[in-house]
Amino acid sequence: MRQSTLFSSTLRESPADADTASHRWLLRAGYIRQLAAGVYSYLPLGLRVLRKLERIVREEMDRAGAQELLMPALQPAELWKASGRYDVYGPELIRLKDRHQREFALGPTHEEVVTELFRNEISSYRRLPVTVYQVQTKYRDERRPRFGLLRGREFLMKDAYSFDMSWEGLDASYRGMYDAYLRIFERCGLRFRAVEADAGAIGGEGGSHEFMALADIGEDTIVACTHCEQAANVERAASGTDRQPAGAAGETTLEKLRTPNARTIEQLSRFLDAEPSRLIKTLVYAADGAPTAVLVRGDHEVNEIKLKRSLGVERLELADAATVEAVTGAPVGFAGPVGLSIPVIVDEAVARMPSGVVGGNEADMHWIGVVPGRDFPVERTGDFRNAAEGEICPHCGEGELRYHRGIEVGHVFKLGTKYSVSGGAVANDADGKEVPVIMGCYGIGVSRLLAAVAEQHRDERGLAWPASIAPFRVHLVPVALRDETQRSLAEAMYATLLRHGVEALLDDRDERAGVKFADSELIGVPVRIVVGKHAAEGNVEWVDRATGERTVVPKDEALARLIGNGTSKG
Amino acid sequence: MRQSTLFSSTLRESPADADTASHRWLLRAGYIRQLAAGVYSYLPLGLRVLRKLERIVREEMDRAGAQELLMPALQPAELWKASGRYDVYGPELIRLKDRHQREFALGPTHEEVVTELFRNEISSYRRLPVTVYQVQTKYRDERRPRFGLLRGREFLMKDAYSFDMSWEGLDASYRGMYDAYLRIFERCGLRFRAVEADAGAIGGEGGSHEFMALADIGEDTIVACTHCEQAANVERAASGTDRQPAGAAGETTLEKLRTPNARTIEQLSRFLDAEPSRLIKTLVYAADGAPTAVLVRGDHEVNEIKLKRSLGVERLELADAATVEAVTGAPVGFAGPVGLSIPVIVDEAVARMPSGVVGGNEADMHWIGVVPGRDFPVERTGDFRNAAEGEICPHCGEGELRYHRGIEVGHVFKLGTKYSVSGGAVANDADGKEVPVIMGCYGIGVSRLLAAVAEQHRDERGLAWPASIAPFRVHLVPVALRDETQRSLAEAMYATLLRHGVEALLDDRDERAGVKFADSELIGVPVRIVVGKHAAEGNVEWVDRATGERTVVPKDEALARLIGNGTSKG
Repeated sequence: MRQSTLFSSTLRESPADADTASHRWLLRAGYIRQLAAGVYSYLPLGLRVLRKLERIVREEMDRAGAQELLMPALQPAELWKASGRYDVYGPELIRLKDRHQREFALGPTHEEVVTELFRNEISSYRRLPVTVYQVQTKYRDERRPRFGLLRGREFLMKDAYSFDMSWEGLDASYRGMYDAYLRIFERCGLRFRAVEADAGAIGGEGGSHEFMALADIGEDTIVACTHCEQAANVERAASGTDRQPAGAAGETTLEKLRTPNARTIEQLSRFLDAEPSRLIKTLVYAADGAPTAVLVRGDHEVNEIKLKRSLGVERLELADAATVEAVTGAPVGFAGPVGLSIPVIVDEAVARMPSGVVGGNEADMHWIGVVPGRDFPVERTGDFRNAAEGEICPHCGEGELRYHRGIEVGHVFKLGTKYSVSGGAVANDADGKEVPVIMGCYGIGVSRLLAAVAEQHRDERGLAWPASIAPFRVHLVPVALRDETQRSLAEAMYATLLRHGVEALLDDRDERAGVKFADSELIGVPVRIVVGKHAAEGNVEWVDRATGERTVVPKDEALARLIGNGTSKG
Repeated sequence: MRQSTLFSSTLRESPADADTASHRWLLRAGYIRQLAAGVYSYLPLGLRVLRKLERIVREEMDRAGAQELLMPALQPAELWKASGRYDVYGPELIRLKDRHQREFALGPTHEEVVTELFRNEISSYRRLPVTVYQVQTKYRDERRPRFGLLRGREFLMKDAYSFDMSWEGLDASYRGMYDAYLRIFERCGLRFRAVEADAGAIGGEGGSHEFMALADIGEDTIVACTHCEQAANVERAASGTDRQPAGAAGETTLEKLRTPNARTIEQLSRFLDAEPSRLIKTLVYAADGAPTAVLVRGDHEVNEIKLKRSLGVERLELADAATVEAVTGAPVGFAGPVGLSIPVIVDEAVARMPSGVVGGNEADMHWIGVVPGRDFPVERTGDFRNAAEGEICPHCGEGELRYHRGIEVGHVFKLGTKYSVSGGAVANDADGKEVPVIMGCYGIGVSRLLAAVAEQHRDERGLAWPASIAPFRVHLVPVALRDETQRSLAEAMYATLLRHGVEALLDDRDERAGVKFADSELIGVPVRIVVGKHAAEGNVEWVDRATGERTVVPKDEALARLIGNGTSKG
């Protein structure tokens, strides 16, 4: 394509509302434009990248045996009411009425619709398993759309749905999609981790994995091992064992100490001149309303999801100050397990402590030299805390756990029979008995993926796309368009590249070299061929956008390399 | 693809709501499913056809130099208010509010958005002309969605927009799109006519052409010549000259005749035993409120669009009975031009009549032997009627005009500066002066095109797709799957075809031959290869779906023909 005709401009300044590096560069380089908060147009450069991502997604879906279909965005509200999600979904679901006052939703996802389709098309186990997918525009009225394409209100998604007769069948379908996702993200040049998003492993009911692009701006925290493949969302990650040395014996003499105004671990640590890992935090929760004390080490954080699951309760929140005072007899900040009459839940790391410091259940008082099991009951123990950085991986026992920030770009989920039961999607088994089919759902945020790759592949001058999804394979830049040698060499190379199906962008603009180079860095095509002072000898400069490496090569060698590596336009 | 895994079923019965043949077959063969009135899912077969149509559209758009982009469906209401269309568009525009009560529309078209994009990207004549397009889902809340994909509420459209500095530039952009449309519809195997949709020719301001698929169910009437390429929507088609012999001289004696109850042309024709072409209809219109008489021949129809344009009025409707009586002094049905004091507009065919019969402006009375120009003024004459079938084409003078029914599948339109002025889309000309850019817009209803092709390519057994857009190139049907010779030959052919990128559907279902053949006819893949009793000799039956022609050929010959003609999977 000739750059002079490109329907976009590069911007010299960063738009005020661009809140991440990728968003800034995508705007400045002319890939996308905002039409409304969270609603974007894809200019030709952006659409080229989006289409390449789509193609990779489709190829891997097809390879995994999934069939593509296309469902509507306009969905009758009745379907959502039948599944119970119309009310649950809240204001993120965009609702509207047609001219006859019938209610519709703009689909944020398609479980209801695909279940309805299945119900009418398939009725026998002979036609299962089957997985269908679509690449389709979705709507979600985010409260705070931000980070450009990362959290939009109109976005492109690949969603897939599998239908099986058994949980073992679902396991296989799930694994097929999981593997396809690994290939997709690898092909897109993404640095990512597949993380457990739920306690269940791939084989279990209700399993779920998230695919997280690693990026500082990520809104999720991932705990990953430095040695093995284990990685999980911090909400779900199993805690490791730490390298904390066992405490000295002398600290086991129980003693009540006056600790004026030392309500927090930080204040107490300073007051006692003791590491937070020597202290024990006592938090009073209301577990389905019942006051319950939870003990974690001073340097650890309670993980409420683990706690909730272990307690088997629906609602879990920190108890209010009045409850804490009523239960402990002391103001907030001085709760402790010694002599407490409510249930006490003890994190394993606390149970392993030789001794520690706890609140005295009395204003400005703490107990020191407290021995778990001796001075308070250690009956209900378990993993109730966030895995911490530096701990030894509980899976391999070799590596250490590290925190990473992640952007969720994919999610695979074992739905089970939730929608098949409410939507009446059944199939006859081999004995002619009707059973609800067992479903899985699998999503990739395609437009979000674009932004995630951009966030990882950029530098201080602009974008630097992986070749697999770059808008062009090569950027041909004649330095001085008015120099006839340069111009004609560039034009000849351009013609040759096009003839061989290599996607090339030719900077045919009569601009200063500085402007051209700056735009080229901004746009981030993987290879730049500079046709400049060496043109007379038939040589050009090959510039690798990502590494900045430059080499002068004969034009024929440059062409041969590009044509050999050329992305077919197919 | 293996038919046993296909995510769709063929239906034995026609769904009750299927109102056209194409809709019936698309439902029965498992191409589409209705989710709500005018809202459809594309099952894998339907999506395959849709994607092929899209690809043809994209290839021809790219070849014409248009750049693809993608704009959102969610459009801020402010843009529509600024262009003045928010109110004008009426209930067809789907409106909604986001969680912050901001108003949005679901785009039925994108003139406002693309103009806004242009305004921010391009400011100099050096970067013009430019044409952009998108293939995108559109929304229109039709009062009466019907005919399946032909008139839907959520539909796929290709819309393109051109930007030029001059009207001559627009003419060239328009011609480029016009020619691309011809190629697109030809490649899709559509029988169609490009028709004038407005008086202006391609060269003139405000020109417009519609591309009409010829089909009995079409909602538009096209007037086309049997000899030349001339064709136009009946609303716009210039009238021809007819072969009516001049009347006999003896009929020119003016005489008032009693014609009791003969109010209509039909009644009068029967009463006088005279051809309607010998009679003159006098219609009283309110033209911007002013009573105006219009004369057309008894066998002709007034064309109000031509009349309105000629009179240069905003509102034109038939006058009410009270006005007719007040103006003519007679009840409705007896108006005539003789002695009338309001303006009289005379269609050319009336002006050419040697004599005729007109109303007497008196109850139950008509004048006979009336000579135009002698008995009433013939000052304002022109083409005020619908072109009639059988008339000689006014363009070539050789062919005859014929009526056809058409489905509008494409529309090209010279917008001029309507949106560039309201949207502030200007560019600097060579003198540095800011001028509003001159726009064109160009639409193809891609999902409608699918239905239009289906409507043309079908018979009493199902669909019969043109090869260019068929879901598969070949349907492999082993007659008896349990016959090992047949099964293994079919499987081997299937594997060979896939290896060569030929899209094949293999009926690997253990069904009766009758069911398989009926389904095959229904689905309508262009070539069916029946692997049956000749399999032992290595022969198969080649069946052409459209013609029904059957030939027994060696399997290698069949493969060679298919691979030679194979549609590459790209």
